[in-house]
This record gives sequence, C-alpha cells and structure tokens, in this order.
Amino acid sequence: MVVPLQADLATIVEGVNLVWVLTVTFLIFFMHAGFAMLEAGQVRAKNVSNQLTKNLLTWSIGVIVFFLLGAAVSTIIAAVTGGPSATITDAFMSLYAPDAAATTAWVDWLFGAVFAMTAATIVSGAVAGRARLGAYLTYTVLIAGIIYPVVVGFTWAGGFLGNLGFHDFAGGMIVHGMGGIAGLTAAWVIGPRMDRFKPDGTANVIPGHSITFAVLGTLILAFGWYGFNVGTAAAPLAYSEADGLTLGSFAYVGRVALVTTLGMAAGALGAGGVAYLKTDKVDTLYVANGILAGLVGITAIADDIVWPGAIIVGALAGAQLPIVFEFIEKRLRIDDVCAVFPVHGSAGILGALLYPVFAMPVWHGGASVVSLAIPQFVGVGVIAIWTFAATALVFGAFRAVGLARVSADHERQGLDTAEHGVDTYPEFGGPDADTGIRADGGFTAGESTLGASSDDGFTAGESTSDASSDNGHVADGFMSTRKED
Amino acid sequence: MVVPLQADLATIVEGVNLVWVLTVTFLIFFMHAGFAMLEAGQVRAKNVSNQLTKNLLTWSIGVIVFFLLGAAVSTIIAAVTGGPSATITDAFMSLYAPDAAATTAWVDWLFGAVFAMTAATIVSGAVAGRARLGAYLTYTVLIAGIIYPVVVGFTWAGGFLGNLGFHDFAGGMIVHGMGGIAGLTAAWVIGPRMDRFKPDGTANVIPGHSITFAVLGTLILAFGWYGFNVGTAAAPLAYSEADGLTLGSFAYVGRVALVTTLGMAAGALGAGGVAYLKTDKVDTLYVANGILAGLVGITAIADDIVWPGAIIVGALAGAQLPIVFEFIEKRLRIDDVCAVFPVHGSAGILGALLYPVFAMPVWHGGASVVSLAIPQFVGVGVIAIWTFAATALVFGAFRAVGLARVSADHERQGLDTAEHGVDTYPEFGGPDADTGIRADGGFTAGESTLGASSDDGFTAGESTSDASSDNGHVADGFMSTRKED
Amino acid sequence: MVVPLQADLATIVEGVNLVWVLTVTFLIFFMHAGFAMLEAGQVRAKNVSNQLTKNLLTWSIGVIVFFLLGAAVSTIIAAVTGGPSATITDAFMSLYAPDAAATTAWVDWLFGAVFAMTAATIVSGAVAGRARLGAYLTYTVLIAGIIYPVVVGFTWAGGFLGNLGFHDFAGGMIVHGMGGIAGLTAAWVIGPRMDRFKPDGTANVIPGHSITFAVLGTLILAFGWYGFNVGTAAAPLAYSEADGLTLGSFAYVGRVALVTTLGMAAGALGAGGVAYLKTDKVDTLYVANGILAGLVGITAIADDIVWPGAIIVGALAGAQLPIVFEFIEKRLRIDDVCAVFPVHGSAGILGALLYPVFAMPVWHGGASVVSLAIPQFVGVGVIAIWTFAATALVFGAFRAVGLARVSADHERQGLDTAEHGVDTYPEFGGPDADTGIRADGGFTAGESTLGASSDDGFTAGESTSDASSDNGHVADGFMSTRKED
Repeated sequence: MVVPLQADLATIVEGVNLVWVLTVTFLIFFMHAGFAMLEAGQVRAKNVSNQLTKNLLTWSIGVIVFFLLGAAVSTIIAAVTGGPSATITDAFMSLYAPDAAATTAWVDWLFGAVFAMTAATIVSGAVAGRARLGAYLTYTVLIAGIIYPVVVGFTWAGGFLGNLGFHDFAGGMIVHGMGGIAGLTAAWVIGPRMDRFKPDGTANVIPGHSITFAVLGTLILAFGWYGFNVGTAAAPLAYSEADGLTLGSFAYVGRVALVTTLGMAAGALGAGGVAYLKTDKVDTLYVANGILAGLVGITAIADDIVWPGAIIVGALAGAQLPIVFEFIEKRLRIDDVCAVFPVHGSAGILGALLYPVFAMPVWHGGASVVSLAIPQFVGVGVIAIWTFAATALVFGAFRAVGLARVSADHERQGLDTAEHGVDTYPEFGGPDADTGIRADGGFTAGESTLGASSDDGFTAGESTSDASSDNGHVADGFMSTRKED
Repeated sequence: MVVPLQADLATIVEGVNLVWVLTVTFLIFFMHAGFAMLEAGQVRAKNVSNQLTKNLLTWSIGVIVFFLLGAAVSTIIAAVTGGPSATITDAFMSLYAPDAAATTAWVDWLFGAVFAMTAATIVSGAVAGRARLGAYLTYTVLIAGIIYPVVVGFTWAGGFLGNLGFHDFAGGMIVHGMGGIAGLTAAWVIGPRMDRFKPDGTANVIPGHSITFAVLGTLILAFGWYGFNVGTAAAPLAYSEADGLTLGSFAYVGRVALVTTLGMAAGALGAGGVAYLKTDKVDTLYVANGILAGLVGITAIADDIVWPGAIIVGALAGAQLPIVFEFIEKRLRIDDVCAVFPVHGSAGILGALLYPVFAMPVWHGGASVVSLAIPQFVGVGVIAIWTFAATALVFGAFRAVGLARVSADHERQGLDTAEHGVDTYPEFGGPDADTGIRADGGFTAGESTLGASSDDGFTAGESTSDASSDNGHVADGFMSTRKED
Repeated sequence: MVVPLQADLATIVEGVNLVWVLTVTFLIFFMHAGFAMLEAGQVRAKNVSNQLTKNLLTWSIGVIVFFLLGAAVSTIIAAVTGGPSATITDAFMSLYAPDAAATTAWVDWLFGAVFAMTAATIVSGAVAGRARLGAYLTYTVLIAGIIYPVVVGFTWAGGFLGNLGFHDFAGGMIVHGMGGIAGLTAAWVIGPRMDRFKPDGTANVIPGHSITFAVLGTLILAFGWYGFNVGTAAAPLAYSEADGLTLGSFAYVGRVALVTTLGMAAGALGAGGVAYLKTDKVDTLYVANGILAGLVGITAIADDIVWPGAIIVGALAGAQLPIVFEFIEKRLRIDDVCAVFPVHGSAGILGALLYPVFAMPVWHGGASVVSLAIPQFVGVGVIAIWTFAATALVFGAFRAVGLARVSADHERQGLDTAEHGVDTYPEFGGPDADTGIRADGGFTAGESTLGASSDDGFTAGESTSDASSDNGHVADGFMSTRKED
C-alpha cells in the first residue's frame, strides 16, 4: 500500500509540474510576438517587414540550432568548467534520444529554448534598418548554437560561475543582460543608420512608425514575462521520501509574482519620471520601455528579495533608461534603434549587481554583502566580456568583408523593398522614390504636383495593366514570385 | 500513515490551485493590452499615444497604490460594515509582511489586483481626447486606493452588501458596472470633446482611427475574460477532513465556461442585430463591443444560471448597447468616447439585476425571486451612488480649478503632441497644423499646395538639418529629450 | 482507507486535467484573434472591417450553432457509421442537460467547439473582398452545424474512418485540411475579385494592407497552436484501479511539444527558402505563412513521429506553399486571398498522408507502411470529397440566385463602406471615390488639386456642419445609427 502511494504522489507531482511548465513556456514563446511588435513599431515604415522577418527567422532558425547544437554545448561547457561531468556523446544523445523514463527531457529543452530565443531576438532591435540579413542570420546561428549556450554552461548548467554562487534567478543577466550587450556591440560595429547623426556629430531623431504597435508589443512582453519570471519557479510541487510532498518552488512563488508586478510598475514610473524631469512631457515610449526595464531589473533576483527592494530596483532600472539611452546616443554615438541596451543590458546588469543590497539572505540570514557581491560582479564581468568579444568578432568579420550592412541605396530605399521585395503598407502614403521614407501627406503632395501623382497608386479599379507595371516595388512580393514568368 | 496523507492532499490542493490562479491572473493582466488596443483604436490618431500612456500608467500607478493602500482599505471597510473584524495594522501587515505559512497571500493579492486595475482602466476610455493627464492620474490613485476598494469592502470582502446576499460572481457590477458608471460620470463632468456636438446640439460623429486595433483589443479582452470569469472559480480542488478531497469550485466550472461562451456570442448578435435593424448595416464596432457587453452581462451571474439564461442575458446586454449609447449621445449629450457605459455600465447593471430571473436557486431550489432581487437592487444602487458621487467629486474639484481638461489649443492640436511630445504615426498623413487632425490625403493636399508641403515631412534621406528643425513636434519625443542641449 | 484514497486520486486527476484543458482551450480560442489579424492584414484597407466582422460573427454564430446542433450531429453521425450507439434525444440532451455527475461535459464541449470554430473561420480568408455577408454567414451556420460535425462524426467521434484507423492527432486534416478545402472551393465558386486576373488571364497582385498585422496574426496563431497541438494531449493524468495513477497523455507530451516546435520552424525555412530560390528575396509573408504551414503539416501526426520526421514534414509543408499557391493562382486561376489552401489545405493533406512514412509504429513497432497508409488515403479522400461537395452546393446555390457576391459597385467601393457603413482608417489616406482603394498620398494629391480637397477630410476643428455632411461614408458608422433622425 505504501509503495503505490509514493508512486502515485510522484506521478501527480510530475503531471502538475508539466502542466505549469508547458503553460509558462507557451507564454514565454508569445514574447516573440511582443518583440516583433515592439521592434516593428520603433522602426521606419520602410523597414518594418525586414524587422518582422528577422524576428520570425530568429525563432525558426534559432530553435533548430539550439536543438541540434546549443543545448549540448551548454552541457559540455558546464562539464569542462567544473559542472556535472558529461561526455560529448551523452550531451547530444540525452536530447536526441532520451531514455523512455526521461519523460520531461524534451519539455525541459523547450523551456530552455524559449529563454535562449529571447536572448537571440533582442539583438535584432539594435541593428534595425541597416544590418544585412545574411550577417544577422549567421549571428543568430552562432548565438543560438554557441554564444548563449556558453553563458548557460558557465551558470545555470553548473559551470564555474554557478559554482561561485552567481545568482540569476530567471535570466536578468544571462538572458537580457547578454542580449542587450550583444545588441549594443553589434550596433557599434555595424555603425549607425545614415542620417542618424548629423555631420557635426549631434544626434538626429528618427522616430518609429507606430507607437501603437510598440505599446502592444510592450504589453505582450509583460504578459509573457509573468511566464518568464514566475514560471521559473518551475516545480509547483516536489516529492521526496524524506520530506513527502511539498510545495517545491511554489513555496516562494507569491514573492516572485509580487516583485515582478511591483518592479514593472516602478520601472514605468522611473523611466517616465526621469523623462518628464528632462522634457516636461510624459513620453509614451519611455513609459512603455520603462515597464520592460523594470521587469529586466527584477528578473535576476525575483526569488530572493523583499518587495520594497523590488520597487527600488524597478524604479532605478526605469530611471537609468533615459540617461543611459542619451549617453549611448550623444556620447558613444551608437545607434541602438530600439534602445535594447538601456532596456535589457544596463537594466539587467543593474539588477544583478544590486542583488547583495536587497538579498533576503543578507536581511534575514546574516549573509555578508561582500560574499554575495563578488560572484555577481565576476559573473556580470565574465558574461559581458564573452558576449562583447564574440559579437564583435562575428560582426567585425562581416564588416571586414563588406557584408555587415546593406548598400546605401538599399538603406535609403528601405530594406522591405530592397531585401524582401515587399511593401508593408502599400496603401498608406507611398514611399518617396528618392528617400524610401513613407511620405507625410503634405510632403508627397508637394511632389505629386510635379506630375508623379499616379506612380505609387494602386489602381485596381482603374486601368490595372498600367498600374501593375508602375507598381514594381510590390510586384516581387507575396503571391507573386513572377521571376520565371 | 494517515496524517502524512492528509498533509500531502492539502499540499496537492494548494499546488494545483496556485497553478490555476496564477495562470488566470496572467490572462486577466493581459486584458490591459486589450483595453489599450480597444481604446486606442476608438480615438483619433492625434490622441492615440495619450490613450496608451494612460493605460500604461493606470496599471503602473494603480498596482502600487492598490498594494500599499487599496487592499487594506477593502479589509477595513469590510470590517466596519459587518464583515470579518480586522485591526488597521493587521489590514496592512497581513499584506506587507504575511506569515510564512500564508504562502498564498501575495498571489491572492495579485488575483485581486488584476480585477481592481480592470475597473480603473475602463474610465480612461470615456474621457479620451480631452482629460488632463494630471487629473486622470489623480483619479487613478483614488480609484485604486479608495473608490474601488470600498466597493470590494462592501461586497466580496464581507461587508454589508455581501451579508445582505448581493450576488456578483466575477465582478459584472463590482468591476465593470462600477467602471462604466465612473467613466460616464467623468465624461459628464469633464464635458464633450470640442465639436462632438454641433451648435444646435445634435451629435457629430468622430470616428476612431483604426477599427483593426479596436477589434484586436476586443479579442484580447475576450481571451482574458475567460481568465476573469472561469478563473473566478479559483479553487479547482478543495480538501477538508470531513469531505476529503473534492473538486471545489471546479464542480461548476463547466457551467461558467459554457455561459461565458454563449453570453459573449449572444452579445455580438444582440448588438449587431439591433444596429442592423436601425441602419441596415452590420456595424463592425457594434458587433465587437457587443461581444464585450455580452461578457459583462454574464459576469455577475455566470456561476448560477443555466445556459438558456446566458443566451438571453447576453443578447439583451448586447441589444441595449446601441440603444443606450444613442440615449447617452443624443439625450444626455455626454461624450463617452469608447462607449464604456453601454458596454460596461448598463450591461453590468442589467446582468446583476436579471440574476433572480435566471438564478438556479429559483429554478431548481425553490428560492423566491423577490428575496434574491432585493439584494441585487440594493447592491447595484449602493455601488452606483457611491461610484457616481466619488467620481463626480474628484473630477468636479479638478474642473472647479480649471485642471480637468487640456486647453482648447492642445485638444485641437492633439494630446500626443501637446502633452507627450510624440507623434504616434509620424509617417502617415501629417496632422494638420490648425486642427491636429491627421488629414486625409485629399485634405492635406489642398493645404500643401499653399506652400506648406515640407513642414510635416520627415526627410531623413534629404537635407536632415532642415528637416529636424521643421519637425518640432517629434523632436521632444523618445530618444530625444534635448531640453538641456 | 483504500476507497477514499482512490476517490481522492480520481478527483485530483479530474481537477488537474480540467486545469489543463481549460488553459489550452483559452489558447485555442485566442487563435481567433490570430486569424482576424492575419486575414485583416492580407486584405485591402477598404475591406478590413468586413473581414473582421466575418471573424467576429463566425465565432459568435458558430459557437451557438455548434452548441445547439453541431455537437449532437457529430454524435449521431458517429452512431450511424459504426461508432458508439446513441439516440437522437441522448445526443442532444447529454449536452443540453448533462447528468450532475458529468462535470466535464460542458468543458469537453468547449474544447471541441474551439476546434470547430477554427475550421469555420479559415474559410473567410479565401473569399475575402467579395463574398456577400449573408451567404458567408449561412455557410457558417452550416459548417458549424453540419459540415464539420459530420467529419468529426466520421473520425474522432468513432465513425467509420475512426474505426478504419484513420490517424489525425489534433486536426491537421479534420480541422485545417477541411477548412482549407472548403475555402478553396468557396473561392472557386464565388470567383476572383475584380481585376485579380487581367483580361489575358495572367494574375494581378493585390497586396494586403498591412504585413505587420499579418505577422502579428501569425504569431498569435503559433501561440494558440501550442494549445491546439500540445493541448490535444488532454489528460495529463489518468487513474484506473488496475494501473493506479499514471501520466496519461502526458507520457508523450514532450514529443508533441518538440515536434510542434521543430515543425513550425522548418515550415518557415521551407517556405522562405523556396520563395528565395524563385525570387532572390526572402518574402516576409511566405516566412510567416510557412510557420503556419509547418504547424498544419505536423498537426495530424505530432503524437506519433520522431523529431527528424517533424523537421522533414515541416520543411515540406512549408516548401509546397509557394508552389501550390502559384499553381492555384496561375493554373487554376482561383483567388484564394489569404492562401488558405496552401497553408491549411495542402499542408494538412500532406501531413496526414506522410504519417505512415514517419510513424513510430513503423519505425519502432514493425507496423506495415501500407496498413497505415490505406486509412490515411481513404480518410483524406472522404473528408476532401465531402467538404468539397457540401461547400460547392451551398455557395453554388447562392451563386445561382445571384447572392454569392456583392455587387461590382460595392466591391469597387470596398465592403467596409458598402456593407458595414464604416471606414476602418478614416484618417489615413481617403479612399478614392471611384475605386474605393485607399489612395497613396501621391495619387490622392493629384485628385485633390482638382478641387476635391475637402471631400474626405474630417474637419472637427473647422466648420463641422459642412464636414459632417460631406462625410457620408462614416456617418452611418458606429455611434451614429442616424437612420431615424
């Protein structure tokens, strides 16, 4: 009677935990819709489809590479840096063909994969509007297959940073910090968009094409982030013969849910507040990105701080956003289009480094601040250096052979037409022939009086044979593929 | 052997219930994306970012206030109106520093918070396009900290309406009804948008800028509403020594899921049908808002009615929407921009009042209609009066000192530029200099021939130094903050 | 002691399974937002609200019909084709008034309903831009009440195809394949949009109005698809006296989650790759729709194949998309606006037919390929013939009486104005008076200099009395309904 009961309890634990892990994994996957909308909203209309394509392909290529290579690399790197020993064969085969008893092997992999793809997709926001698709996708293969898995090998998989005591609950540094650093590095190597800086070096604002899509993306990301953070408390129930059935990681899930909520709220107020102090306006995108910065700031430490700490860390992570963004723009003159470094990079670093200040082991357990601080500084430093070096090497190599960015003509025309053969919004404001900028009504109108009035128009109801020939920038698009005609 | 088993069962119950409550809480949080899109789609393009900012800040400010103050106010109000006794200290400390044993205290708070924020955010849709940000945010603090918590104190927390037998399963009246009443009151006090009514008093239609975003918002809301309604059956499992392990609130979860589904469907048909009878057209926004009205109508009673009742209540809640909207517009001449009263207010009231007609205790249990009706009428009346009075007081005070709405210039120009320094869609149809209205191609074109053709254009590919100086309404936006330069 | 324990275990199983089924049901419901955005993005701006209205009404009407009629039809069809016997009364009453003990009857129905509505809504994408609302909605009633339920009766409900061994895990053929076939049939019967094909028969590209919305829809669908596929492993736990408590369908859930992920990724690469080979461009919409085709391809077989098979099937399902789309467009000259046949139809057929090639019973269990292939070919054939015949009959009847499509005038003007009295984007580029096409800036500008500059403008800040009278295409819209004024 006792044995079956224990087996029953263990099965219940496994079933409940799978329900939870799968649910939060789906939520984290949905963050890709958030990134796609956030980034699409923050780029010019002429580059939207390029941005969306990068997002779709980051997931599609990245997840295959992470299955075939990346996950095993984590295991191997962990093994060679002091973690659990593993042969190269085992590293691959435990995923390619797990034991029948390892029912959760593939679910666990997918749970890891959605974190990996988050790190990978952050980069695309920094290099928007000029990175060549081939260079970007090559980097995607490398970040999914090697660069990110090495970081996981050092840390969560049990490598030397993990052994040192580096604390990163849900990837504030491992996922977001590294993604932000990678994005900033790539943007630096590739160089700014044309006209982003004036000849005298001052910055020129290039606003994104739709704040609505950007805010939608923000809220989708916040939704998915509950999966990201709260879901990292991945084992609602636990069972052992000694302790019986316990709440497992759900013993502290309330704390994680609370500090995630307060951290995101404080981030919005921090970013919006600093922007308001600087400009007397409440900037919508700073408030939105402040929500994300607050979430990033709290992500590394959400399991182990008290709620007043969450409000402070979230507010600081938000407050640094306008300041760091301006520093990057005006001092470093790097064109980080979607502000991925201030939102993911510096906010992630900040949260990880502030851990010892707010850690419950310090406040409630008598741990020394210094003993907690050392692993954090070492961990942040190692991850930052590795990410910077690997990213600079990849994009530097592409730059050296002239393949890092699209031609000036293509950039001016817009990457959608030039690289993808599509026009994202063919009915709204024709892109100007010279600049590729989707013209305001007024601007185009001035042009149109010069006789160009029918060039951009889609005129299905009129003489379609004329229209379609004028309409070359759409003709190669979806549902056309007329190359062979 | 028996004792550990009981403990195990209780732990399983807690774990499973937490998985469910957290999942539905995330869904309800996601309703903020729905409200943001629904409202953004229903306002002019010149006011979109203002609306989005209000939505983001309602959540960010509201959730902090509800944690620091609101939840405790509910407890205290309940205690002083006949509910469970509680000291003021306990009311706060049970949330600020719950017992270690109270593992679910913060999760329970978050589950309550997402309902509270739903009520708060409804208001923003009614006062769109003219409410001053400071007045709106002050009201947000008060609704999250006091106005809504008082209603919860009266009802769910155990106060006098709860004791009287007021039945509101998931907040059809407590959340949506009160939000709709608050919105209508605020819109009445603040007054209509300029040109919303003609000098002769007849209404002037001001269509929203994107039905696509509005419908997206509707469907996100419907998705989240499954969390809202079905999730209110919050305890899938229950355990007691007497009864052992039972299905808890999942014993009736199928009924809740079914009537929620049928109520929303009938709402769409009710609203679309009445609109069709009036205009011979199937109006897209009436169908969409009808889905929401049907959901609101069913929310108070979804646990306790049979499915034919759900179809009737949903259809009525939808059918009243075009009628009540027109009454408010043409008779009351109140400018409820996003129709929040017909969708949330009157639909919520209707559903709560219809409870005795369709209640299973009446049909299956022999309860008297009158005995069920009295608490419903009293409850609706008390909530309506309190919400109206508190809201009118707050916005009336702001109006008295001239701070309730933006200046006529700012309203004409659009709140995005004037209040937030951003242009939501800088590449699509420049806002007219005089009206702030994002002009149709034709309209702007007429202007542009007068020599204004380059004023609005972003001309990154051209002479950027000129462009940026003309481009003042964007220059203060995100990634700019050039005040100190 | 033993009996209560068994009861407890059974209750836990029921509670956990309900948590899971409800969660994934909500995710599948959310796919309607995905379809709405995907389809809206792929139609002209003048037809967006029509498309959205169809999506909203497909759900609203369909779910009521499927409750009142469809579910019982499945039961009855199954009974008369060799499945579990059932009286007509039982078929209806087991849903209208289930036994109190059948706590999951309505949840099970809802789980079935979200699959049914997916099949129904696919059709709207094929007939966009010209189908009359009445014809479409009549078809919706029939597909929800009879056409789809008959297919389920043949298969999942236990009818002759089920008995034959037809394998369709989550509806790759039953839901998507039949939806795609229905869509293609309807598009063929109704005929192409005007100007979709030139007088010489060659195709004319009519691009959709927003790739951003289309990609958003794709990612929402992929999110919901995790519910669709992984959720079809609907019983995380199982209990029987003989086996005790087991993992139920979660014993293989990792495989389903893995192949769903890899199949979708490979689909994007397959479709994007073939499009690239044909045009030298990476087409955004092919990549997006390739994700969906990969998902469709894997859906019938996700429980029973190994992961290398998923990559191959996904890649093939993606690769066939550009080829089949072109065949339909250029050879069959059918105007399948949103490519629903290549995405749902041929991909679903392909996946179902490839089952014996990759089935684990063949690779690991020694089953014969032929014995698995026969039921697949018979099943695909029966479903295809039934769906084609029923759909052709319905739309053929409407065509015979001239009610299948809107008038040429309405089609030119756009269905939004003509059928719904709304303008989806009233502030962005006025639709041309003759064509209904939302004009590019340049095009309208040329018109406007002819003196039409104020016709389309909304001029709230100006002389509103003039504006509102000019503004007829909006005047019948939401919040207006001025018929009786």
